[in-house]
Amino acid sequence: MNEPKKIRAAVVGYGNVGRYTLQALSAAEDFEVAGVVRRKLTNKNPELNNFPVVTDIRELGHVDVAVLCTPTRLVEEYARPLLESGINTVDSFDIHKDIVGLRSRLGAVAGANNAVSIISSGWDPGSDSVVRMLMEAIVPKGLTYTDFGPGMSMGHTVAVKAIEGVRGALSMTIPLGTGIHRRMVYVELENGYDAGQVIKNIKEDDYFRNDETHVTIVDDVNRLIDMGHGVHMIRKGVSGITHNQILEFNMTINNPALTGQVLVCVARASMRQQPGAYTMPEIPVIDLLPGEREQWIHKFC
Amino acid sequence: MNEPKKIRAAVVGYGNVGRYTLQALSAAEDFEVAGVVRRKLTNKNPELNNFPVVTDIRELGHVDVAVLCTPTRLVEEYARPLLESGINTVDSFDIHKDIVGLRSRLGAVAGANNAVSIISSGWDPGSDSVVRMLMEAIVPKGLTYTDFGPGMSMGHTVAVKAIEGVRGALSMTIPLGTGIHRRMVYVELENGYDAGQVIKNIKEDDYFRNDETHVTIVDDVNRLIDMGHGVHMIRKGVSGITHNQILEFNMTINNPALTGQVLVCVARASMRQQPGAYTMPEIPVIDLLPGEREQWIHKFC
Repeated sequence: MNEPKKIRAAVVGYGNVGRYTLQALSAAEDFEVAGVVRRKLTNKNPELNNFPVVTDIRELGHVDVAVLCTPTRLVEEYARPLLESGINTVDSFDIHKDIVGLRSRLGAVAGANNAVSIISSGWDPGSDSVVRMLMEAIVPKGLTYTDFGPGMSMGHTVAVKAIEGVRGALSMTIPLGTGIHRRMVYVELENGYDAGQVIKNIKEDDYFRNDETHVTIVDDVNRLIDMGHGVHMIRKGVSGITHNQILEFNMTINNPALTGQVLVCVARASMRQQPGAYTMPEIPVIDLLPGEREQWIHKFC
Repeated sequence: MNEPKKIRAAVVGYGNVGRYTLQALSAAEDFEVAGVVRRKLTNKNPELNNFPVVTDIRELGHVDVAVLCTPTRLVEEYARPLLESGINTVDSFDIHKDIVGLRSRLGAVAGANNAVSIISSGWDPGSDSVVRMLMEAIVPKGLTYTDFGPGMSMGHTVAVKAIEGVRGALSMTIPLGTGIHRRMVYVELENGYDAGQVIKNIKEDDYFRNDETHVTIVDDVNRLIDMGHGVHMIRKGVSGITHNQILEFNMTINNPALTGQVLVCVARASMRQQPGAYTMPEIPVIDLLPGEREQWIHKFC
């Protein structure tokens, strides 16, 4: 019997998520790494020595699927030309209010070019979205709470860094239950700035004004950074007319490692969908797994 | 705008699961109960007064989907003629080793008759299978444990009842972690039987010989029965090359109520699949929910 053809995947963007995605692709036996696409070829990382690193994906030959590890705001700009050239794309786009819009816009491009795009596929949005929808389906009345952390919030950290007088920052999300979070902010000051004023400006920022926020001044924020994160989701409600059904999902994970692995799963699943754009709950979960369906049904059903 | 057409569903079999399925169908706004199909029309339950109760589904007029609430061993026998007449079927078939086989056999019938069958769709197998596959996909190396209970095991209870001298029985499954379970068995004796001998026979039965089993003789087993159940699933492993990723799913639920609700969800999803037979992880989770996809993507992604 012939070995099944491997899926040729390119990693587009090589920050934290790109690095972990490359690791996950390399660990997946059904994938072949076509290469890494970066804006510039300066400061080459040693772990990239065994992979082609290019600035234009066309230099990589045939590519089945591009895993977009760019900043979230650049996802659409990168995805469009790839889909137009018939390459599937997957991403972890996380601007909540534009997910339906992005799906519609990329869906039109993908559909017209016989390609597949699976968007917003990290862990939240992404695998958590799958669990939340499953919980909603099997307990249709009731409340779901999603509590994040303890872990670093990328968005909040960037918001702190944008405040004048801040040289370095870390914003930790601490779960207080029922979707309420405390913000623990660690700040390295620029020389000559007043701690009191900077702390006041952070607490009044839109990202923080509605949450309990504590700011601590530290010497070196880099010594505090840990990529661990977590989530706790709980739903309590009614199945049929029966109350007090309680469902719960918890994770404690390395954040970019899980994002990279989810992206590899949806890259695989993209090879099995009809042309168009999808979010993760629109993909059969079994399509995230390699090989034939029967082995997984036998093992997990 | 016209009201969207409701899905006409029939409940086939009216034991515990049938009763809760009827409640869940009645609570779902996108369904219309076509009626209940029973082997005999004797001992009519008062809650059935508002529904047609028949012995032949053809008496119910057009039916889109039949929810099979029969004993698991009768699922195939009931499903075949329904699929042959173009009616979708859903079931909670739970004989693990025959799920792949049943899917293949009913898939052939469904495919040839433009119908859909979604099998093994309770909570385990069923929604738990979806969660286990999702966990396996996003943490591809490692161990998953499924711990059941505390709750009544139907299979073990039936096994005790089959032993000579047993008038009534209840076998509770107690989770000890890492997939190991204790069996707490409560037995009502027939007159004239020796407790010691009956207990010995239970402990030596194939269902119990490999588990820690405690048997207690009681006066009235019916006073102990509670339909609550639970599950704890945990996976610890590796995403990419990053270790110690921990995922966990827990439920504490009314067992037949959750089974009935899951069956209603897959009955809905059956209207959205191509002809053939499926297990639950082969169905996009979003198809379990009513109405348009965009509302759920907006809410849960």
